[in-house]
Amino acid sequence: MKPISGKIVERLARYRTFLTEQAPGHRTHLFSHEIAAAMRTADSQVRRDLMAIGTQGVPRHGYEVEALMEKLDLALSLDRTHAVAVVGAGHLGRALISFLEASRSTLCIKAAFDTDPAKCNRVHAGVKCHPMDSLEAVIAREAITLAILCVPAAAAQGAADQLVHAGVKGILNFAPVALRVPVNVALEEIVITTYLEKLAYFTTHPSKERRNGRHEER
Amino acid sequence: MKPISGKIVERLARYRTFLTEQAPGHRTHLFSHEIAAAMRTADSQVRRDLMAIGTQGVPRHGYEVEALMEKLDLALSLDRTHAVAVVGAGHLGRALISFLEASRSTLCIKAAFDTDPAKCNRVHAGVKCHPMDSLEAVIAREAITLAILCVPAAAAQGAADQLVHAGVKGILNFAPVALRVPVNVALEEIVITTYLEKLAYFTTHPSKERRNGRHEER
Repeated sequence: MKPISGKIVERLARYRTFLTEQAPGHRTHLFSHEIAAAMRTADSQVRRDLMAIGTQGVPRHGYEVEALMEKLDLALSLDRTHAVAVVGAGHLGRALISFLEASRSTLCIKAAFDTDPAKCNRVHAGVKCHPMDSLEAVIAREAITLAILCVPAAAAQGAADQLVHAGVKGILNFAPVALRVPVNVALEEIVITTYLEKLAYFTTHPSKERRNGRHEER
Repeated sequence: MKPISGKIVERLARYRTFLTEQAPGHRTHLFSHEIAAAMRTADSQVRRDLMAIGTQGVPRHGYEVEALMEKLDLALSLDRTHAVAVVGAGHLGRALISFLEASRSTLCIKAAFDTDPAKCNRVHAGVKCHPMDSLEAVIAREAITLAILCVPAAAAQGAADQLVHAGVKGILNFAPVALRVPVNVALEEIVITTYLEKLAYFTTHPSKERRNGRHEER
């Protein structure tokens, strides 16, 4: 299949989450406008995105939910398990472990890491925390390809370098710092204050246009 | 000042975070290409965004850091305090309270809420947790305008409705569910699994193009 752009991948992942939310067996078919309404986007956008993974709805019935889920899983490589590490087992790291372990997902947290000896060799929500100096060995042993970075800003670049060196191919960064990673490593950043600051702006600058930024056509 | 689009606001907030990270007094001036390099975007983008808030660099010196910070604070309404509530005081909610209380910010968490009586009337990182049925009274008393939603998916819409009814003007939603809010309420969603799924896609579909999705021009 042709590679898909980051923006389309993100929307497809959101459609998939929406379908996963639907009660199983509740509806066998859904129309593009129903998916679009829930995502606050346009029908045509949904149809174009699903066309990109070779899926088309049927007039008068729409998309068959089960077949669509299978196509999305295949397109997003979620038909297989991805081993994930959490680096930084503080409040946020442990919260993300609990949160992700509770979600129905093929993203599987295999290990946590921390510099604090008091946190190491303990198990949180079924996930063992290891010292940072065993990072490379554990990542190789568990075939971990993705990492979530929840360390303080000052420690983030060092931890990212260690992860890249250990062979991790994708990093989700929660530290409020701009990381440098090689071009063959995928990077996503969630800077929570940025989202709040954006909301703060829109609460103090009322406007008539729809301002739910994450759902703008882009 | 003219209202700014959500995309520009998001980038301005990221520039501001980057400037905040710089050691105080370390550099009095920065060039647009230096900001752009850290944000993995184009110089021209940075210059255009800063032009939108009436700021221009000076040839051979660039932008004066302190003046730029002031302009950004003013443009983003971060020259004043914003009172924030956290709804759902589980692992993630408590982690976000600790995380945000530690960040230098004018976003100030004033209250937490939970349905669990065991969590109520306790203080976490200086923030008191209240029962959900006092939400409206506490939000009015503390003049809270923003809320972070960290409740389970099934409880998210009900909690959002309660927040909107209480007069909250912006919601940051961590629950993996598509919320419906009135058009005069700003909504941002952080669905952590979506980011991980996007990374999983790019680690299994190597491509030569830069695939750090958050930094694509959009």
